[in-house]
Amino acid sequence: MSGPGEVILGDWGTSRLRLFRMRGEEIVDRADGPGIGALNGTPAAALVAAVAPWRGEGAMSVTLCGMVGSRNGLVEVPYAACPATLAEWREATLSLSIEGLDIMIAPGLKTRNWLGAPDVMRGEETQIFGAIAGDPALGRGRHLIVLPGTHSKWAAIVDGRVERFHTFPTGEFFALLRDHSTLARAGAREEGRDEGFDTGLARSAEFDGLLAAIFEARSAQLLDGRSHGWALGYLSGLLLGHEAGEGLRLLGDRPERILMIGDPGLTALYRRAFAARGIQTLDLDGNGCSIAGLIALQSSGKESH
Amino acid sequence: MSGPGEVILGDWGTSRLRLFRMRGEEIVDRADGPGIGALNGTPAAALVAAVAPWRGEGAMSVTLCGMVGSRNGLVEVPYAACPATLAEWREATLSLSIEGLDIMIAPGLKTRNWLGAPDVMRGEETQIFGAIAGDPALGRGRHLIVLPGTHSKWAAIVDGRVERFHTFPTGEFFALLRDHSTLARAGAREEGRDEGFDTGLARSAEFDGLLAAIFEARSAQLLDGRSHGWALGYLSGLLLGHEAGEGLRLLGDRPERILMIGDPGLTALYRRAFAARGIQTLDLDGNGCSIAGLIALQSSGKESH
Repeated sequence: MSGPGEVILGDWGTSRLRLFRMRGEEIVDRADGPGIGALNGTPAAALVAAVAPWRGEGAMSVTLCGMVGSRNGLVEVPYAACPATLAEWREATLSLSIEGLDIMIAPGLKTRNWLGAPDVMRGEETQIFGAIAGDPALGRGRHLIVLPGTHSKWAAIVDGRVERFHTFPTGEFFALLRDHSTLARAGAREEGRDEGFDTGLARSAEFDGLLAAIFEARSAQLLDGRSHGWALGYLSGLLLGHEAGEGLRLLGDRPERILMIGDPGLTALYRRAFAARGIQTLDLDGNGCSIAGLIALQSSGKESH
Repeated sequence: MSGPGEVILGDWGTSRLRLFRMRGEEIVDRADGPGIGALNGTPAAALVAAVAPWRGEGAMSVTLCGMVGSRNGLVEVPYAACPATLAEWREATLSLSIEGLDIMIAPGLKTRNWLGAPDVMRGEETQIFGAIAGDPALGRGRHLIVLPGTHSKWAAIVDGRVERFHTFPTGEFFALLRDHSTLARAGAREEGRDEGFDTGLARSAEFDGLLAAIFEARSAQLLDGRSHGWALGYLSGLLLGHEAGEGLRLLGDRPERILMIGDPGLTALYRRAFAARGIQTLDLDGNGCSIAGLIALQSSGKESH
């Protein structure tokens, strides 16, 4: 049962719902549920069911970010436009009430990226604002935050606002090639993944062209006896190396260091890709950033009502 | 029934078997069958069944190219190494006899491509040697032949031999993105494909990075009201433009013109991609090249026995 002063915070993405029951800044309990893309019923019914074990007397405050604010979510929340400060992001929040739940939903962000193309994010902005809220140093000067994932986001932070960002769908590319292509499935042996990663990374530095280098995942199995594991490592190293190279070329000037938010196994691979180009990285805690961002949103919401 | 002086020529790829019953250089009849990747029984049984309507008294000569010579085919024929002349390619042919069929199978080619990576082809070499056999001008000087497709091949022809080639799995990438990705499936409207193609082509010329530009297929639907058709066109233009750009950068010097062998609908799109970079193209007839290549192989086979 939800006690006095308790609130629910949550990140509801395409593939997963993560809920945190908070007392102040302390996590009292947590729960997981299906993502927006994996629901049988309506998002409203799924949310009511997910928080049911925590319901007590009276209303309950729930603050959510992620694809829950997309057109397939609970309600479509228009994107806030970059450059965006924490306050401007908060202003674009949508509130609604469902069966005694007072729900706030974070907006995503939209921008014109470094190519001048339209670009969007939903969920990552909460981690970014959480990082800014949690570190006064990020409120001044220029910083680069990279959030590796299915759709990696590179965000330029200038004096505490999200100035601009750019999406690289690198993780989705890797999954497509691993699961559906002819490039990685010629063999069965799994060793050699690390060596393949290094070879792919090296290829990405030799030539600025992804299409020209990617068939080697298959041909090296056919001609050089490379394993399936090597091919997967090669694809991973090649893709991450190209993302790193393309992003740095788009930025123009080289950042002193890059802050990363993401799965530790994945950021470790990105660290190698950036190190190969002489750039240091620092990992931030993803869950911590999400919660800090939702707290920043939720607190302000309370004040404004 | 097969008459005197008749032979069977065929291109047996992953997805399709195409057979031609020839009298000299005249096509007397043709038949299609399932590809090597789509067989229920053995390749041998499938071939015997496919030519059964043409069987007469005595042996029958069958000359085949394509994936029929891969490890999943009728028999694995080792790749001939580049640089390769028509004569060297012929020498690597394998012959076998199955139920009265005297079968010759063309070898594929292997090379180190322009990145120094291992590269392979099976089937396209027959079209290339067919083009060379059919045009004395290709026997002298340098020429570039591009064969667009699932795995596009760029081949440098020097004094009538295949000097080197390079694979761009552009068609496979497009199919993965069209059928399995989140990038093109946000909408349902089909108009705007041509305009999307031009935008993708233009993006490919602005910046040498594929990953950085590909998310626009999705974000332009979300923010700019672009259709599903536009997004597919964008992906196609972006991929073809990058293949053209990467290939030309790898080559170093610009070819005066490019010869293309492939599906006319596809070569028409490549023509736009090359024209945008100031390169003229000339289409060769793909079926004609296949048959000319198989005739060159089959004739020589007869002479050498």
